[in-house]
Amino acid sequence: MPKTIVFQSDFTYKEGAVAAMYGVVKQVDPELEIIDLTHEIPKFDIWSASFRLHQVVPFWPIGTVFVSVVDPGVGTARKACVAKTKRGHYIVTPDNKTLTHIAKFIGIEEVREIPSELRFASPYKTAVFHGRDVFGYVGALLASGQKKFEELGEVYSDYQSYVLEEPHIDGDALLGIVEILDPNFGNAWTNIPITWAKQLGIEYNDLVEVDIYEKERLALQLIVPYKSTFGGVHVNEAVMYANELECLALAINQGSFIHTYHINQGPDWCICIRKASYV
Amino acid sequence: MPKTIVFQSDFTYKEGAVAAMYGVVKQVDPELEIIDLTHEIPKFDIWSASFRLHQVVPFWPIGTVFVSVVDPGVGTARKACVAKTKRGHYIVTPDNKTLTHIAKFIGIEEVREIPSELRFASPYKTAVFHGRDVFGYVGALLASGQKKFEELGEVYSDYQSYVLEEPHIDGDALLGIVEILDPNFGNAWTNIPITWAKQLGIEYNDLVEVDIYEKERLALQLIVPYKSTFGGVHVNEAVMYANELECLALAINQGSFIHTYHINQGPDWCICIRKASYV
Amino acid sequence: MPKTIVFQSDFTYKEGAVAAMYGVVKQVDPELEIIDLTHEIPKFDIWSASFRLHQVVPFWPIGTVFVSVVDPGVGTARKACVAKTKRGHYIVTPDNKTLTHIAKFIGIEEVREIPSELRFASPYKTAVFHGRDVFGYVGALLASGQKKFEELGEVYSDYQSYVLEEPHIDGDALLGIVEILDPNFGNAWTNIPITWAKQLGIEYNDLVEVDIYEKERLALQLIVPYKSTFGGVHVNEAVMYANELECLALAINQGSFIHTYHINQGPDWCICIRKASYV
Repeated sequence: MPKTIVFQSDFTYKEGAVAAMYGVVKQVDPELEIIDLTHEIPKFDIWSASFRLHQVVPFWPIGTVFVSVVDPGVGTARKACVAKTKRGHYIVTPDNKTLTHIAKFIGIEEVREIPSELRFASPYKTAVFHGRDVFGYVGALLASGQKKFEELGEVYSDYQSYVLEEPHIDGDALLGIVEILDPNFGNAWTNIPITWAKQLGIEYNDLVEVDIYEKERLALQLIVPYKSTFGGVHVNEAVMYANELECLALAINQGSFIHTYHINQGPDWCICIRKASYV
Repeated sequence: MPKTIVFQSDFTYKEGAVAAMYGVVKQVDPELEIIDLTHEIPKFDIWSASFRLHQVVPFWPIGTVFVSVVDPGVGTARKACVAKTKRGHYIVTPDNKTLTHIAKFIGIEEVREIPSELRFASPYKTAVFHGRDVFGYVGALLASGQKKFEELGEVYSDYQSYVLEEPHIDGDALLGIVEILDPNFGNAWTNIPITWAKQLGIEYNDLVEVDIYEKERLALQLIVPYKSTFGGVHVNEAVMYANELECLALAINQGSFIHTYHINQGPDWCICIRKASYV
Repeated sequence: MPKTIVFQSDFTYKEGAVAAMYGVVKQVDPELEIIDLTHEIPKFDIWSASFRLHQVVPFWPIGTVFVSVVDPGVGTARKACVAKTKRGHYIVTPDNKTLTHIAKFIGIEEVREIPSELRFASPYKTAVFHGRDVFGYVGALLASGQKKFEELGEVYSDYQSYVLEEPHIDGDALLGIVEILDPNFGNAWTNIPITWAKQLGIEYNDLVEVDIYEKERLALQLIVPYKSTFGGVHVNEAVMYANELECLALAINQGSFIHTYHINQGPDWCICIRKASYV
């Protein structure tokens, strides 16, 4: 059975950083199979890095090692760490809130701080490229079995997380945030479970009123139908649908909801959804 | 010998859909080797998906399993299917005309409709992500040998295809379409075989007149030399050359033919090529 | 132990060329593991192709086969070649200066000219796609062990290289070039070793004056602090730092130095760095 290591970063393939990092993996163990989660996390966007792990990790075999390198604080005092999730996946990452969504949705069993002496013996001794010389290297040691999780540093508990405000129901309103954008298809995913819509009597084909705020500013007010899929409306029509993680999401069929309405993501982007009232 | 599965989609790597899909493949069989054909098919562009399979599949070992997920009709009544080509490759895809070029250039031996109960047991029970839970999953079952082609549903014959009008010769003119753009190098590939140029006495270094129509509108009229390769003219000069599939193609050496002349692809983009007449 | 072949090109994944090339590799030997170095080298940019090999190759196991296809001269008289580096890596490439940086920083032991009869037996007999039918094919023969390096053509010595002017110290000034851009993070990497800064008494936290010329034109004059990492200044501040190859580099923390100041790369982009003088 091949030993697999899965990488995520904001490096892109526009230069050689990814391939230098992968070379070190192969020097540790040529048998390791390397898979891209993505190298197109928006630059320095830890929130997206955190969410993408949540979207992807649960679908991989138990024991798979993930390396995430979105690291705006490189060179500062932030720790390098390895986390083991409650389901048995491993995540090697700077300790900079990248573990937020995994901690919330799967749970973290243990986090260890990678000691600074655990470094690839690079031909370049002075300038450390942490993706290549620390995170990729340590991920490869773990995935290859050359180091056990227990050998990767001291356990600690106060790893960094964003404060995630829970979505909630307030009377006839579903309240949450635009948790993540789908930058390709232009959809906006909320953190509100589809079961809650049902709970408020919102069924497929109903119309809903959607209010989106950026902090206090009302950014969008819209009435759209609720469908099981964004293909349930005509091309270029807006729609609320059930996304692949079973949360409510907003789309324009074959268009871009987020560009059309200038919607962004994160804790500042609040959303309120209620059944549309008819005059 | 590793079992390989090759993926094509319009998902891009901007979010986690590809990696979630690949995780399911690895849960089916960790030994499966996953290769990207591309995830940069233009969004919802079934025509391009169809052509890319034609460009790529014949170069792969017999028996290779391809999964194509360009699926604007997801959630509608379109079938999910597995095709076996006459040369013995397999293609798992929504039945939405993605098989057009393979059917024409290689031939389809048999198509089976994937039954709706053949679904990955996702942790998310309600919202099906067809790429992850159907196409990737079924492709992995087939590539791993856990399911035989014959076990993947009932045979049917009326799978969807574009009507492809054949290129033809009319007097001294070669008539065809701009079949596909090369969006990277900016070239326009026609569906006219290079042997037909020879047949009309058009040889390398001859000048040809090229007329391109978008339906009835004359979009471009140009006289260019015919060379064996687009490197056969000076930088920034337009040229007709023999592409890697042995059809006539148009380029600007180190420039972009398609952006310079606003050329697009598909059945509506007709092209007429004849030997240039000298006054 | 898997046999690995690493690919670099300017093809992108926007069309099917990469996957057609990889299919041929798998036809040569299905056991070969294929890794992307990158397919996003800027179009026709041989200088970048040369630099990326320098950035990546040393981190890979000895014996790894690299295939580089950035080939603006395809169809002209340029040779196809295989180089063996002094450290024992192999590079299959058009002989068009792609070997420049590897030759300088690692050294080339031997270069062989791939004979024109060494071609994949493509279904398309006339139109040769060199990436697919020559470079990928020959790389696969070598990586699989089906051909020894010694069987890949005659040795020759006058392979093409850019003339690289050496960086040097002139009084209190460090003189070099902007050797490469990091197109993702927007940094500019010089060819001046960080040890030379030390030699001139330039230490971390010192201010330096940076002058960048495009040929004779003064393109930028700036005073910036020197830090061990670009994270050592506030967000949006410019900084000189030590890059991962232990050369001096310029960045704007979480911004783009190269876009802000319109800086490009190559032998024409000269840079002069000296300790800032205080009035």
